[in-house]
Amino acid sequence: MRSYDVGVWLAVLFTAVTSDTINPVDYLWPIPYSVKCDPGLQYGIDDATFTFQGSGQGGELPTLTSAFERYRPFIVPDTMKAKNPNVKLGVDMLEMLEVNVVSNDETLALETDESYTLEFKNETTTGVYSAILTATTVYGALRGIETFSQLVHQDDTGAYYVSVCTISDKPRFHFRSILMDTARHFIPLEVIYRHLDVMAYDKFNVLHWHIVDDQSFPYQSYSFPDLSGKGAYAQNHVYSQSDVAAVIEYAKERGIRVIPEFDTPGHTASWGNGQPNLLTPCYKVNTTIVTGHGPINPILESTYTFLESFYKEISEVFPDQYLHLGGDEVSFTCWESNPDIKKWMAAKNLTKYAKLEEYYEQRLIDIVDKLGKSYLVWQEIFDNGVEIRNDTVISVWKGNKFQQEMERVTAAGYKVILSACWYLNHISYGKDWVKYYTCDPQNFNGTEAQKELVMGGGAALWAEFVDGTNLLSRLWPRASAVGEKLWSQMARTTNANSAAPRLHNHRCRLLRRGVPAEPIEGPSFCPEEYVPHY
Amino acid sequence: MRSYDVGVWLAVLFTAVTSDTINPVDYLWPIPYSVKCDPGLQYGIDDATFTFQGSGQGGELPTLTSAFERYRPFIVPDTMKAKNPNVKLGVDMLEMLEVNVVSNDETLALETDESYTLEFKNETTTGVYSAILTATTVYGALRGIETFSQLVHQDDTGAYYVSVCTISDKPRFHFRSILMDTARHFIPLEVIYRHLDVMAYDKFNVLHWHIVDDQSFPYQSYSFPDLSGKGAYAQNHVYSQSDVAAVIEYAKERGIRVIPEFDTPGHTASWGNGQPNLLTPCYKVNTTIVTGHGPINPILESTYTFLESFYKEISEVFPDQYLHLGGDEVSFTCWESNPDIKKWMAAKNLTKYAKLEEYYEQRLIDIVDKLGKSYLVWQEIFDNGVEIRNDTVISVWKGNKFQQEMERVTAAGYKVILSACWYLNHISYGKDWVKYYTCDPQNFNGTEAQKELVMGGGAALWAEFVDGTNLLSRLWPRASAVGEKLWSQMARTTNANSAAPRLHNHRCRLLRRGVPAEPIEGPSFCPEEYVPHY
Repeated sequence: MRSYDVGVWLAVLFTAVTSDTINPVDYLWPIPYSVKCDPGLQYGIDDATFTFQGSGQGGELPTLTSAFERYRPFIVPDTMKAKNPNVKLGVDMLEMLEVNVVSNDETLALETDESYTLEFKNETTTGVYSAILTATTVYGALRGIETFSQLVHQDDTGAYYVSVCTISDKPRFHFRSILMDTARHFIPLEVIYRHLDVMAYDKFNVLHWHIVDDQSFPYQSYSFPDLSGKGAYAQNHVYSQSDVAAVIEYAKERGIRVIPEFDTPGHTASWGNGQPNLLTPCYKVNTTIVTGHGPINPILESTYTFLESFYKEISEVFPDQYLHLGGDEVSFTCWESNPDIKKWMAAKNLTKYAKLEEYYEQRLIDIVDKLGKSYLVWQEIFDNGVEIRNDTVISVWKGNKFQQEMERVTAAGYKVILSACWYLNHISYGKDWVKYYTCDPQNFNGTEAQKELVMGGGAALWAEFVDGTNLLSRLWPRASAVGEKLWSQMARTTNANSAAPRLHNHRCRLLRRGVPAEPIEGPSFCPEEYVPHY
Repeated sequence: MRSYDVGVWLAVLFTAVTSDTINPVDYLWPIPYSVKCDPGLQYGIDDATFTFQGSGQGGELPTLTSAFERYRPFIVPDTMKAKNPNVKLGVDMLEMLEVNVVSNDETLALETDESYTLEFKNETTTGVYSAILTATTVYGALRGIETFSQLVHQDDTGAYYVSVCTISDKPRFHFRSILMDTARHFIPLEVIYRHLDVMAYDKFNVLHWHIVDDQSFPYQSYSFPDLSGKGAYAQNHVYSQSDVAAVIEYAKERGIRVIPEFDTPGHTASWGNGQPNLLTPCYKVNTTIVTGHGPINPILESTYTFLESFYKEISEVFPDQYLHLGGDEVSFTCWESNPDIKKWMAAKNLTKYAKLEEYYEQRLIDIVDKLGKSYLVWQEIFDNGVEIRNDTVISVWKGNKFQQEMERVTAAGYKVILSACWYLNHISYGKDWVKYYTCDPQNFNGTEAQKELVMGGGAALWAEFVDGTNLLSRLWPRASAVGEKLWSQMARTTNANSAAPRLHNHRCRLLRRGVPAEPIEGPSFCPEEYVPHY
């Protein structure tokens, strides 16, 4: 107990300030694995007295230090404005968040332990109140610091308090991603950074960067500079090597892996601008007239020479163990029109174009295998029976009967990621977050072993109608609904009605943090609304 | 001809710089009544040499002076960055936009003449090139200045040019509104101001301010301060008298009238918090148990005493000739449950609740009549056969068979506004602007005289799922499609496909001006993307 005013000291001797109006659990998003709060028990918290303290066993952890800097304004904001009423009243003050990290290894990977525990210590002998956050890895600590920041509230007098709760938390799934598409529209770096901030607030841990596509190639390759030089929308619509490195670093500081997707052999029109002879020439039926270009040409050795160099580069530029190889929506029409391909297939005794696709994928996978990378692919690779490594992860995206697909993929023994029910670019009027909240990645017919193969899932925001003007307001807090499904235990995320007030409180918190998270629950207000800066 | 470099003087003696790549008409939105451009003819334009000059016949017009200040950065932007290549090359420079306004009357009303003409003058004797904008009113001049600003382009060297076009322009409809709802969510003033800016870029001229509703009462009345004191979401969610005055002034400077809607007798739940006995008590069937409150209570004289005072205030606060009286979606359930109302109706020989509604509306209209105001009402007032003044304007909003409603309303001789096909809050995936663009307010069965009664129309953005986070990106440029339908001649707005590239260019202009106008045409890019400030 610490008091600056002996006059009121006695009145608050035996208790921290209580409040009947706030249930701290109503402010936690995503909901932790286990949380128990002392009803009404709160400590004051104040910029003048609060400190972070934390390290790994071997000393300072840079990731922790920068997290402390980021979170300080969320945890002890604008004290001067609030005129420090805590101190005047002499309430019990929380003086410290002590963060203990077991491992000094800052490697971030699929298997990274993100669990943490948070408890409050009332040292009556020293009169110092502190909160103790314990985690195996610094990334678990990041999740815990976010949760701790969600326990802070402001009362009517303007004073800040921390609710006293004992929390033990861990993610339900290891893989919790958001797909960002920077090819249909260019997304400015400023927006990507802010988006990564919000991902961290919502405990997402993978940025699935669908970086190039038919329409544009904004990735500036150092091996093949013409790819963006001729394939980007414009030369101010390009992510340079240093931009990409900065995004990866920024993400990692927030516990987010960056998995790039260079989708092939379809979705590659923009590649053709800067890489001659890469795409298949399409012919007008029964003529020698070339009408345009189709998917990557799978019958030329030059294709694989190019892919070897290109994938060598991106496997170095993107340090994550996983790459997303794409493989969706390959149209066979162009291949069928091409007499060279027909000839080649006949010579190889290939009778189906799906087999030609398999040939391409097999060679691509061999290249990526040699680079020591693991990979995700869209479901067509599995559907078409391509031979893939056991640790391949299948992304299920087709909306039609996705539960059966989940069942088939896991029955075949593959790991799987669900995206099909979380295409957030498909907007509609009303509370569509409820639809996202009631979709569960393990809700399909299958054995326990099959369910174990579900690594997680991902929200997708394809960018046909999205750019820097609306990415954040379109995603948040709709993606927060997906975030909770992926982090929190199934039993705690079955009821959208009971989640709604918590989601509202979470949106208000996002507004306070300067995120333009749109209203999704009908008429409402937040104590502090979002005011844009133009 | 003015040249700073005699060496290149001869090369450009007989012509301004030409460009084959730009058709200036492709950059005009909404498309003017008549526009003829000299193919490829352009003048350079530069901050160092360009001036505005303009006045009414009686001297300075403040509205014009402030418009010059606003538009200068759009017309001659960042010249220093562009290193002034025009001057170096010695191209013909446009030195002046001369604005001639016939009338000094700055009154803004439904009938205000918004027409203007724009032409370019090549004075070979003096060597001074200027553009001449002529308008009857300062508001016509504002429309012309916007159009002039849309003739400015930047070439690959970074230099700015003005395309030389002769334009004669006037609006198709006098009434071109956007409904803004500040009751379902509070919209911060900053957003309202920015929204008014964009309305002016798109030549809208009425802000239909649906200021209060069931959910909240953010208008701070000086006669009845408890209305917002107890009916607003929170006391930082209130528009003070000075806020309202500032919005009206800001709008007027841009040629935009502000028409407030205080919707009664339904949609008034929030009024009841601060005005006791205003709302009808609803009873549990056949009991004396009050279960809640319904529409305004039409049988009490105190209701009309209140309305007299309240409408006296708002008729002064909002100077426009028109008020919107609401009148939509009145539920009779509560009135039916109330024994006092039953008794009263029996005594008055009223057998239908529609007649009770008519009684209320009639008395409200008498009040507003005495205040000398004209009014708009939602279509139910007409549908229910309420006796209304001849100059009443009916807002057609119901999506079902709205063409028949337009036919009926005009057949009865009333003026009409169409909103039914322009509910922009009803979002869906894809290019929904095409739907808005293919709806025409005069596309219904009726005589020429009936068509003449169409005053215009209004886009509506009801705010159940809208606040400051997404208002601008949700409205723009989708509302721009409506803007062109209302400003431009019918014959020039029949083809969405041919309008699409112009709309794209318009969106890019909005981004350059700092407006987060969302992408609505599928994959694309703008030379300068919108980068938010967080």
